[in-house]
Amino acid sequence: MTKVKLDQRFSPYQMPSVIIGTTIENKPNFMLCTWISRVNRTPPIWMVSINRKHLTMEGIRENVSFSMNFPSINLVEKTDYVGITSGRNCDKSSVFKTFYGETNAPMIEECVLNMELKVEEIIERPDHYIVLGQSINTYASQQVLVDNKPDMKKMNQIVYTGAEGQPSYWTIGVKIGNAFSIGKEFK
Amino acid sequence: MTKVKLDQRFSPYQMPSVIIGTTIENKPNFMLCTWISRVNRTPPIWMVSINRKHLTMEGIRENVSFSMNFPSINLVEKTDYVGITSGRNCDKSSVFKTFYGETNAPMIEECVLNMELKVEEIIERPDHYIVLGQSINTYASQQVLVDNKPDMKKMNQIVYTGAEGQPSYWTIGVKIGNAFSIGKEFK
Repeated sequence: MTKVKLDQRFSPYQMPSVIIGTTIENKPNFMLCTWISRVNRTPPIWMVSINRKHLTMEGIRENVSFSMNFPSINLVEKTDYVGITSGRNCDKSSVFKTFYGETNAPMIEECVLNMELKVEEIIERPDHYIVLGQSINTYASQQVLVDNKPDMKKMNQIVYTGAEGQPSYWTIGVKIGNAFSIGKEFK
Repeated sequence: MTKVKLDQRFSPYQMPSVIIGTTIENKPNFMLCTWISRVNRTPPIWMVSINRKHLTMEGIRENVSFSMNFPSINLVEKTDYVGITSGRNCDKSSVFKTFYGETNAPMIEECVLNMELKVEEIIERPDHYIVLGQSINTYASQQVLVDNKPDMKKMNQIVYTGAEGQPSYWTIGVKIGNAFSIGKEFK
């Protein structure tokens, strides 16, 4: 066997780069998060895991809502900026243009996809809170749609990785096959 | 505002392609899963959300352990194959070469990264179970390491997306910047 054990402290694979939006003291606040996943199909439930220390948790508890915003690579500097700064020390309310849906979770106009969610449950773990939220609405920017569906190349989303020792942002590459189809060629 | 509401049924962004390994009736079984995330730093806890109908859930409950295996694009056919077939109808135990660590969760030799986890908690949702597991060990294939760290290009992992209406597999592209750093250029 040619396997080597890795240090468990970092997360050695690609993750999405998502900006979480909350309202804090009547103003929009944003943070970068890479620990998210869908967890149920119908209704559409998602989870985001947030460090206990983050101000965002206060906004989530207070409003029982939050947003997930998916940036393109042209927003990489601002995306990282909201990841390395805290709303406790600086006002991030004007970093992006915001819009609202049915909740009071601020969504980011410049992001290609946006989702507003209502909090269902918060599960405690030693250094993070797992926040389960039901998606109320999903929005896409008109210019990334082809036949009313989001186009991967037009979205050009930011991939995050902690591999290589240096956390970094990457692009999506090229399509290699259709899911639930290409496997039929294996027997 | 140039935002358009999307149908909530699909998940319009990039997700990892991960093969979940379990032991079922003393044999390895595998399924493709794209709903995973890390949820705690210390100890390293992960979550995977699995449809209630899947046989994999029986293996997870019985053994209180499972593995996550991260395939490169050269495994795309086999990866999809274990996603479109059920262990109830076919024997997937010999699709991959397997190895074991400290649990009885089978890991895939051909995958560039492997993780073995012990189940901590199973949370019920309408059509899925959210399985929280603590990572016991993480392994990398020797040939993807550079200076003892996994190299993104050598790993060449499979990205999954449900955007564009047609679920599909993609590659990772190119590095665009260092995380927790490039944002300093925004003020």
